[in-house]
Amino acid sequence: MNFHSDNAAGACEAVMRALHDANAGAAVAYGDDPWTAKAQAALNDLFEREVAAFPVATGTAANALALSVLAPPYGKVYCHRFAHIEEDECGAPEFYSGGAKLGLLDGPDGRIPVEALAETLAAAAIGGVHHAQPAAISLTQATECGTVYELDQVCALAEVAHRYGLAVHMDGARFANAVAALGCTPAELTWKAGIDVLSFGATKNGAWAAEAVVFFDPGTAGDFAYRRKRAGHLLSKMRLISAQLVAYCDEAVWRANAAHANAMARRLGDGLVAQAGARLAHPLQINEVFVALSEKVAQGMLDGGVGFHGWPTSGSDVHRLVCAFNTDPADVDRAIAIAAAAHQAPQ
Amino acid sequence: MNFHSDNAAGACEAVMRALHDANAGAAVAYGDDPWTAKAQAALNDLFEREVAAFPVATGTAANALALSVLAPPYGKVYCHRFAHIEEDECGAPEFYSGGAKLGLLDGPDGRIPVEALAETLAAAAIGGVHHAQPAAISLTQATECGTVYELDQVCALAEVAHRYGLAVHMDGARFANAVAALGCTPAELTWKAGIDVLSFGATKNGAWAAEAVVFFDPGTAGDFAYRRKRAGHLLSKMRLISAQLVAYCDEAVWRANAAHANAMARRLGDGLVAQAGARLAHPLQINEVFVALSEKVAQGMLDGGVGFHGWPTSGSDVHRLVCAFNTDPADVDRAIAIAAAAHQAPQ
Amino acid sequence: MNFHSDNAAGACEAVMRALHDANAGAAVAYGDDPWTAKAQAALNDLFEREVAAFPVATGTAANALALSVLAPPYGKVYCHRFAHIEEDECGAPEFYSGGAKLGLLDGPDGRIPVEALAETLAAAAIGGVHHAQPAAISLTQATECGTVYELDQVCALAEVAHRYGLAVHMDGARFANAVAALGCTPAELTWKAGIDVLSFGATKNGAWAAEAVVFFDPGTAGDFAYRRKRAGHLLSKMRLISAQLVAYCDEAVWRANAAHANAMARRLGDGLVAQAGARLAHPLQINEVFVALSEKVAQGMLDGGVGFHGWPTSGSDVHRLVCAFNTDPADVDRAIAIAAAAHQAPQ
Amino acid sequence: MNFHSDNAAGACEAVMRALHDANAGAAVAYGDDPWTAKAQAALNDLFEREVAAFPVATGTAANALALSVLAPPYGKVYCHRFAHIEEDECGAPEFYSGGAKLGLLDGPDGRIPVEALAETLAAAAIGGVHHAQPAAISLTQATECGTVYELDQVCALAEVAHRYGLAVHMDGARFANAVAALGCTPAELTWKAGIDVLSFGATKNGAWAAEAVVFFDPGTAGDFAYRRKRAGHLLSKMRLISAQLVAYCDEAVWRANAAHANAMARRLGDGLVAQAGARLAHPLQINEVFVALSEKVAQGMLDGGVGFHGWPTSGSDVHRLVCAFNTDPADVDRAIAIAAAAHQAPQ
Repeated sequence: MNFHSDNAAGACEAVMRALHDANAGAAVAYGDDPWTAKAQAALNDLFEREVAAFPVATGTAANALALSVLAPPYGKVYCHRFAHIEEDECGAPEFYSGGAKLGLLDGPDGRIPVEALAETLAAAAIGGVHHAQPAAISLTQATECGTVYELDQVCALAEVAHRYGLAVHMDGARFANAVAALGCTPAELTWKAGIDVLSFGATKNGAWAAEAVVFFDPGTAGDFAYRRKRAGHLLSKMRLISAQLVAYCDEAVWRANAAHANAMARRLGDGLVAQAGARLAHPLQINEVFVALSEKVAQGMLDGGVGFHGWPTSGSDVHRLVCAFNTDPADVDRAIAIAAAAHQAPQ
Repeated sequence: MNFHSDNAAGACEAVMRALHDANAGAAVAYGDDPWTAKAQAALNDLFEREVAAFPVATGTAANALALSVLAPPYGKVYCHRFAHIEEDECGAPEFYSGGAKLGLLDGPDGRIPVEALAETLAAAAIGGVHHAQPAAISLTQATECGTVYELDQVCALAEVAHRYGLAVHMDGARFANAVAALGCTPAELTWKAGIDVLSFGATKNGAWAAEAVVFFDPGTAGDFAYRRKRAGHLLSKMRLISAQLVAYCDEAVWRANAAHANAMARRLGDGLVAQAGARLAHPLQINEVFVALSEKVAQGMLDGGVGFHGWPTSGSDVHRLVCAFNTDPADVDRAIAIAAAAHQAPQ
Repeated sequence: MNFHSDNAAGACEAVMRALHDANAGAAVAYGDDPWTAKAQAALNDLFEREVAAFPVATGTAANALALSVLAPPYGKVYCHRFAHIEEDECGAPEFYSGGAKLGLLDGPDGRIPVEALAETLAAAAIGGVHHAQPAAISLTQATECGTVYELDQVCALAEVAHRYGLAVHMDGARFANAVAALGCTPAELTWKAGIDVLSFGATKNGAWAAEAVVFFDPGTAGDFAYRRKRAGHLLSKMRLISAQLVAYCDEAVWRANAAHANAMARRLGDGLVAQAGARLAHPLQINEVFVALSEKVAQGMLDGGVGFHGWPTSGSDVHRLVCAFNTDPADVDRAIAIAAAAHQAPQ
Repeated sequence: MNFHSDNAAGACEAVMRALHDANAGAAVAYGDDPWTAKAQAALNDLFEREVAAFPVATGTAANALALSVLAPPYGKVYCHRFAHIEEDECGAPEFYSGGAKLGLLDGPDGRIPVEALAETLAAAAIGGVHHAQPAAISLTQATECGTVYELDQVCALAEVAHRYGLAVHMDGARFANAVAALGCTPAELTWKAGIDVLSFGATKNGAWAAEAVVFFDPGTAGDFAYRRKRAGHLLSKMRLISAQLVAYCDEAVWRANAAHANAMARRLGDGLVAQAGARLAHPLQINEVFVALSEKVAQGMLDGGVGFHGWPTSGSDVHRLVCAFNTDPADVDRAIAIAAAAHQAPQ
């Protein structure tokens, strides 16, 4: 029972089938192939407008490349202090941008409060040569606490950023989970809400390794293509990535996968709360469960073969359990039963 | 009939099968999985010693990451002026190293002459603070002209480099083709000949996207792991790459694939010379054919559906045709026939 | 009456005289000259041990170059959130290090509390490939709030850093002011307390443009010389900087200059508190006065020709007044009188 | 008798006087001072148009900062293979640009032939994502071989560069020597001939440490100010540099200094040729003498106390002797006499 992360899963059937199909015959390398053209078309459809989409293999690459177009080397990108770009990418944004800084904002449940952003930008020394220059904000949707920004929160944050001339990036490693949770369309959650660039993640939701950097105004993609190539992120056999994206962009894949993972997390969280004395450390909104567990429950689960991580930044007794597109409800129920048994066991 | 490049092909059956197998079940992300352990073991076996191997998805990433460990930001890496790292990676080595320079050497057929290297290093201002500091050499094996360095040439170049304290990197995007051409072992062509680090390429020879940076002395890998992560080249579902490598490291795959590609190029080159008035621009040693063609032959081939690139750096009338692991001999013969017909046609 | 900053002053007489003397005759360029040798000897004397000293022209260069030797591109340097390297250098540390991150710590009066550092390092993911790696701490002495770390505080912070393998840098833009305030020796405040590298500032205390990066263990200076050159901070006529340093390293210059500036600030601060209703926002320990002023006093001073800056990060009504090596006590008294008059004026 | 380099000299009287004058009183730091305003005005006058001028302390900083505005991180800057930016700056252009490449052109006497540039750019893969993108050319005027580009050569090179959309930089470390040699105006040699940005050097010609990056179209200076600051090249007591520039921009200083240095080199070169069997290795056009000397003459001069460098890149028996603004004609004559004596001595 692996609840370590959604990237512990492999690829879903539709993706595997697409890879098999894409392997037929020869194709021009480096993206001048039919699958890449189809991926571009599929993303245009998904977002209901012509976008500039650049497939890459990892979320870290997607984020860092996107930000390198938005921020100059002396720029500053604001994000939540728990953001993946700050905490989990070993300095990738700094590397790709040539030295830009991340400005950290705090707020409950992984979300940047609009007021925090507004106050920070009001006090920022825009135009002052001594100071790194505010260039962009990056919103993680869904957040690193398993929560989502509501549509109006995204709009409000984007509005503040744009007022000061900053670009708005969304780290969508779990974008599908957020869309599924909000019951909205991908367009509504992005460009219609003021997002300029999206790291569109498929890997965590059923692809092998497929992300796309999506510029909603194709004219702003700038020199992305050069930056991707010199970073070694332009695959020669690009159809490997593109075919995954084509399969994934089908609503019957991305939304269904995400909805399943979200539902499994709901089931798991509810069960742990009801039967194992667990307390939700953050609202349970997507496919991640952050729960405070008693020591005996946590230990009992681990001993019983339930895999997950401690999450001390959310509390010393907090743990994270993540469900995936292919999480088996039987495994969820088994994990709950193990937790419940540990809960009821004498000390 | 696609002879544009060996990366116009997809993946071979063994690789596809491995991907399918690797998709079963959950696995710890970021390389702590059984397939990555097997890939490491397979590379140890292949090279007949314990190595430190780091799978990545592209050859540009492999080269640039490897060199970033070998050269400081103010370092200098010597390579042939036709080297992929100089000509075809949009500045990736400079990016990854933080600004190191490439020092260009010239020599016939894509090979660096030993004397050229020796003279250059003898004249280099090693230790002089005004000058970028010699740090490494990079040999492309097989070369960008479709030729190979003989074992004794590799040894001699490595010996000169080591005498001056430089590390020796081998760009092995077509490593298997070189090994197959030379009839030697991977160990003989690398660490036994003085190579310190190899970009071991599988993509061009039957994988989808799989390379490994191989440090023959594991203690010299230094901070590679951090550099790979911050470049976004540590895949979360690492088994996608590792499983390809496991399948590929089987001699029945890599050597057979390479031998086939080499044989097809031999057949193609011989046919063009014998029947279409072609002249080999470089010795035909691996799976690439560099031929000077008359304009009518070149045009006739293109018109007849034979795809290939002009190669002006080897001569204004020179063209490159590349065979792959799955090139069909019937296609080769058809291409020759089309060329022969064009050759005999009245002007 | 300019109290904007200590760098509003020019150079002191001893420095001007040294420049004049150093201008006689020819000298080998780039630091192989007698003045640079004398500067090295003077710094050895000042610090009571053989050090490796590298003169540069600015404090930002000193800090960024020093940190680039201490931290890898994926490294993390901890500093106070008000530190000059974070707030006032437009991303220089990130630029020079190739992308290292600054980790911000908070604490009253510009000082990093020992516990804050200890807790942060205890929680840091040292060795985890996903995370920027803790590499160094940087202490600003005196701090950006005009306070000093006591000797035992420096020792305790350095001890914690060293326990985790981090190097300890001191940004000594106002180092002399701190030494004068503490009544200690330069050695006591640096290597005897655990400092590994010092940005030794002279510019703010009577030089034109002269700083030295001082490695207390010469063996740790690493590739500093190459990094300085490629940053354009190796002056050809190096004696311009070195001569300033030679003059400055005389205790009758550096300590006397600093003691005067400190005393003038004391006089100014005491006067404003006693006569103008001011409140010290931070302890007054060196040559900087941080005071909360009523609006009418602040305005009255500005109207009366007293120049200074608002300092909102220390409070919305806080202002900073800085004295220099050549601040005229008459100007101080005049400023106080103007403030007192404004204070007593009817609203 | 120091003929090692023109930067072996100190500063000229006018510069020393200006420094003395600039030391009076307080001034706003970081360039908002009257001397910096005067330096800007003086450069406007010198170049007969409004320019954007940025004072810095070194030529390496001037060049690298200028190029970092002209070339993106994946850009390519073409220069002569002997250029200072390639040979003598330890990778500064690569550092400042974030990894741009230098493309090397060859040509006699340190000059880039127009045809070489034209052919190179015609063959460059502009717009191809695999290749570093041509962004600028950099002309060294005077060249590293002590020669000058004639006005029409500058025009022709700039015309070719502009045709392909490249910017044109001039490294003017010895700009005054070139202007004096050509008998033209600074405007004629720069923007009137197509130069976009100039590294205007004063250090080698009588300043201590003073260069200015001059953008002839102020609108193209872009983010130079931020880049200078984050590189630590914005001096707090900026008047130190600016005052030097103000003094230097007087034609009675820069042109007179340069004319003297050029004349001394003429005298030295003529004498060595006539009396010591020397052969000029390059045309003698400015203040540098490149001469092939017999071994006994070279050794005799060194033994006689004449200081200079060997210059093997211009020939194994070639040496460089450089005169400065303050070279004493008596020293020149003495050096010639020593050489002549050595020449006539029996083997």
